Amino acid sequence: MRLVRFGEVGAEKPGLIDDEFRLRDLSGEIDDLAGEALSRAGLAKIRALDPKSLPKTDPNQRLGPPVGGTRNFIAVGLNYADHARETGAEPPEEPVLFSKATSSIAGPRDEIVIPHGSTQLDWEVEVAVVIGERCFQVSEAEALDHVAGFTLCHDVSERNWQKERGGQWLKGKSAPGFGPLGPWLVTTDALSDPGRLDLWLDVNGRRMQAGSTADMIFDFRTIVSYVSQFMALEPGDVVTTGTPAGVGAGMKPPVFLKDGDIVTLGSEHLGEQRQMVSAQSR
Amino acid sequence: MRLVRFGEVGAEKPGLIDDEFRLRDLSGEIDDLAGEALSRAGLAKIRALDPKSLPKTDPNQRLGPPVGGTRNFIAVGLNYADHARETGAEPPEEPVLFSKATSSIAGPRDEIVIPHGSTQLDWEVEVAVVIGERCFQVSEAEALDHVAGFTLCHDVSERNWQKERGGQWLKGKSAPGFGPLGPWLVTTDALSDPGRLDLWLDVNGRRMQAGSTADMIFDFRTIVSYVSQFMALEPGDVVTTGTPAGVGAGMKPPVFLKDGDIVTLGSEHLGEQRQMVSAQSR
Repeated sequence: MRLVRFGEVGAEKPGLIDDEFRLRDLSGEIDDLAGEALSRAGLAKIRALDPKSLPKTDPNQRLGPPVGGTRNFIAVGLNYADHARETGAEPPEEPVLFSKATSSIAGPRDEIVIPHGSTQLDWEVEVAVVIGERCFQVSEAEALDHVAGFTLCHDVSERNWQKERGGQWLKGKSAPGFGPLGPWLVTTDALSDPGRLDLWLDVNGRRMQAGSTADMIFDFRTIVSYVSQFMALEPGDVVTTGTPAGVGAGMKPPVFLKDGDIVTLGSEHLGEQRQMVSAQSR
Repeated sequence: MRLVRFGEVGAEKPGLIDDEFRLRDLSGEIDDLAGEALSRAGLAKIRALDPKSLPKTDPNQRLGPPVGGTRNFIAVGLNYADHARETGAEPPEEPVLFSKATSSIAGPRDEIVIPHGSTQLDWEVEVAVVIGERCFQVSEAEALDHVAGFTLCHDVSERNWQKERGGQWLKGKSAPGFGPLGPWLVTTDALSDPGRLDLWLDVNGRRMQAGSTADMIFDFRTIVSYVSQFMALEPGDVVTTGTPAGVGAGMKPPVFLKDGDIVTLGSEHLGEQRQMVSAQSR
């Protein structure tokens, strides 16, 4: 299934994209794509519905992030060897974890407003895992049982804030709009091989990143199990799994996003995002 | 006001500690100490109530964390010069920020279960700020207008996971039970001088930490304004502001928590916490 949330910021309703790519309203069936609705039992209930029985709704309205109630937004750093090298780092021996503020989460086509003080705004296309059921110290074998599905994540990054402001990366990963998710949450049953997802990112139509999850150093089940060794993951939590080479900071000379740039990113099975970059309107 | 949440884990109700230290039930007035209830208007409504009109309730039941709906749990590192020195670090030139998983949040007397794999479990008494209203890039002058109040925080830390597992501190700060908050949320109007709060921590009755928020390198308004330069803070978010000297890792030789230890911590105006440390029961 391709699950979505549609409507205005903070008032999104749950929906479903059917096989003909029509937007169907799920709000008569569930309150939100959050909490219990993301569990195996909750998703089975949605799967049992006949999509044709759900009301069609305006396909041109805003899509929000396809998951609500996120309380932990965790990211894996340097998880593609080519990206690690372009940053000057060695590929890590175990996953590097950092967090993004949950208040950075945005819809897949929401504007990226350049925050005041930002000078090195950069892009990173990633595949994120959405947690469906609580897990703490779960084994790799059982890790994906706790995953509701996968979604595209733009891990927008301010490199100066990430690297030059005191050691921890959180500062450069967390401004409002720095975490576009979606368009869809693709449930695990609908992805035959998440380990071979393509992913790409263009800036103003120029291809900057092109990769495959096949090149991740640590795969999805390893990551979920690993993160859960240190913290409990809960329904709606998001773990984004790293970006391939081709970020702006890795270019010679470095290239950063500026007012008016258009970023598009996508993956065949996960859909596409598109964001306009806008100067701060303070 | 001293506001609390009481009841079983995940089903806490809002309450108030009156001037005679009796527990009063606020659940007839508000749903939770979360979201809009933490705003200036929301707190003014609670303040307008006559505490004597609220039902008394069993004072011996569990207290939960005194704030619900936390979606960002941010911490300031090395914010007391004596603690920075005991860790071998220089006092920072600007605040060091890291995050704790929101799933680490616990009540003030909940057990600390030693997670599987932990070998260096350490303590840190801190004062935390609870955000009452959304703020992004707020000035220092206006920062405390967005704060609902203050509470005691035990920033439980696994030093090996924090320092030896890949660079970012998140890993050592996030296990379930690593973030006891409370007993009370003391609203800003009830604290004449949060810049002079004492704080102390004992392990098995032996005083390990004794400090004052007067010794913080960065004060509360500086911290809230600073964090908000990088991320939007929302109602219910918690920012804990660092610990004074006296942690276990700073001793020669280092001392860490073990099964059966009792940790008590407190501050004159913020109340006391007490946790028993228990071996993992897996």
